[in-house]
Amino acid sequence: MTLTESVLKGDRLALARLLSQAENNTSEGRAALAELFPHTGRAHLIGVTGAPGTGKSSLVNRLALHFRSLKKRVAVAAVDPSSPFSGGALLGDRVRMKDLSGDRDVFIRSMASRGALGGLAQSTAAVVQIFDAAGYDIIFIETVGAGQGEVDIVRLAHTTLVVEAPGLGDDIQAIKAGILEIADILVVNKADRPGVENTEKALRSMLELAHPAERIYLHHGQAISAGESPAPPAKAWTVPIQRTISTEGAGIPELAAQIEKHRDYLRSSGDWSARERARLAAEVETILQQTLSDQFHARVPETRYNEVMRRVFDRGLSPWEAVGLLTDGSGTTDRQATASNGPRERS
Amino acid sequence: MTLTESVLKGDRLALARLLSQAENNTSEGRAALAELFPHTGRAHLIGVTGAPGTGKSSLVNRLALHFRSLKKRVAVAAVDPSSPFSGGALLGDRVRMKDLSGDRDVFIRSMASRGALGGLAQSTAAVVQIFDAAGYDIIFIETVGAGQGEVDIVRLAHTTLVVEAPGLGDDIQAIKAGILEIADILVVNKADRPGVENTEKALRSMLELAHPAERIYLHHGQAISAGESPAPPAKAWTVPIQRTISTEGAGIPELAAQIEKHRDYLRSSGDWSARERARLAAEVETILQQTLSDQFHARVPETRYNEVMRRVFDRGLSPWEAVGLLTDGSGTTDRQATASNGPRERS
Repeated sequence: MTLTESVLKGDRLALARLLSQAENNTSEGRAALAELFPHTGRAHLIGVTGAPGTGKSSLVNRLALHFRSLKKRVAVAAVDPSSPFSGGALLGDRVRMKDLSGDRDVFIRSMASRGALGGLAQSTAAVVQIFDAAGYDIIFIETVGAGQGEVDIVRLAHTTLVVEAPGLGDDIQAIKAGILEIADILVVNKADRPGVENTEKALRSMLELAHPAERIYLHHGQAISAGESPAPPAKAWTVPIQRTISTEGAGIPELAAQIEKHRDYLRSSGDWSARERARLAAEVETILQQTLSDQFHARVPETRYNEVMRRVFDRGLSPWEAVGLLTDGSGTTDRQATASNGPRERS
Repeated sequence: MTLTESVLKGDRLALARLLSQAENNTSEGRAALAELFPHTGRAHLIGVTGAPGTGKSSLVNRLALHFRSLKKRVAVAAVDPSSPFSGGALLGDRVRMKDLSGDRDVFIRSMASRGALGGLAQSTAAVVQIFDAAGYDIIFIETVGAGQGEVDIVRLAHTTLVVEAPGLGDDIQAIKAGILEIADILVVNKADRPGVENTEKALRSMLELAHPAERIYLHHGQAISAGESPAPPAKAWTVPIQRTISTEGAGIPELAAQIEKHRDYLRSSGDWSARERARLAAEVETILQQTLSDQFHARVPETRYNEVMRRVFDRGLSPWEAVGLLTDGSGTTDRQATASNGPRERS
């Protein structure tokens, strides 16, 4: 039995191995992804983001337990920008294991940052696809929020939860987080803390500014137009604000109900497939950029590249001029080399 | 007088106009950057990052005032991932203006996120170069931290300050921030808050894990190897932890002294030019990726692209397979079109 067949049959060990291959972007991993791709498109992808200290991980734990009680199979991709030094991913896993270990229908994968965030978004997309093909009904994508990089990761999701908590900073800082616009559902976690009314009030007034009805087309506009234009949604989604206390499980069934309501909204409005398309278009763009870059570096001799870079280091050539030189010159070299089918120019 | 000449002469209005052109990546902006590039390489670039609520902005304000008292010309690039809806950038500016307005040797530029973070890193690099050419001695690059995207922006700097504050979350969350490894100086701001000892203790034990001596080569390894190998630094930098209370100005002279000490370390160890090279190499890579992507989209007919994307949307083709088709097919088309010098394939 091949690895992909084992994954489709529900073999957890095969799943773990395939996830590693996909994360490491091996050629076997890519081949397996291609094989699994026709089996994807069924799971509900739920992004969960928010600043450090908002209690995202325990919220995801609680939601996972809740959906398990509804007999849903649940997977979690916890995207963790910790370095290999800090061991944050491991620590996080151990905390989670207490509640969810031993349940064969839950799979948690912590993903540490390896290199650039583009790479992380790409490997998260791959991990989510594998979970989807493996038959998980609900897939959480959890990231530490605030930055645009995390926004890009969460954009993989059908439904995005932005988690806030009282007392994390003043109003200006809250506004600066800048991730409100991607929220489908706002969660005020740690709602037993003082200041919860103020947090909720600030969120509500910011929501009024943000015009959620326009938001979807702003964010997904470009990607959607890559396919055919979808019909505008029947009616706009009103972003709810849900209080939770994840340590006690308070508000979790209500939050889960909001998530299911949002899924129904997406299905009935046509937004579900619009988001699917936006997601796939973004994934193709990311892989495309990586491929173009790899092709360039395979094509341009290293000595040539270093020679141009030396001129940049000496301030004799600006970065823009350098790229102009490298892309014009290399193109010619490439075409000649290909035409003569001769050996690669190397030095 | 051309715009770049006016900028080099110290004209603030010309500077503001050029910054806009560079941020919008106009061809005039790029031409001006090329003209200004030989004038760059003199400023000390100081990255300041940390989670929302740590008080980064007021810390940068205080440091700016301090360096002004030493007769340094100071510029600030405040990178703000707020959306246009929230108005965070505007609000931030107004708060700053109280302390620093009217000083002709201070220039503050708030940069809101436009599209992808890659673009933001690129336009930040451009803004910093213009400040550098315009003769600012100290350039702060301030970002809301936590994500890898912000890490990439801060990597532009010679000296990176990571700002923490007591009471922002538990220890696991602090580890998750994952930006400790890029710190040259750790700042515990709001040091009059309860819990400051715990925050400092947690930071200190994490520093011991992180092996700062190895860090530099890990992070800048690839970019450095693009040029010739630098000599290893004479001795490793020990990351200091500095307490501050930016609202009162406490700890600011000491922090400024640490910053100058780090600059001296960079100069004497050879790390200054190693970081310059890493920075320029990263900038070339970013521009290169953008250029390759633009060339691809100019080359591949939109109908062809959409046709392939439709097959992906129908799950008939995986994203990897789609990119394989698009890059092979387009390459052939491009070479043929170039060889015959005929008109571009369009439909």
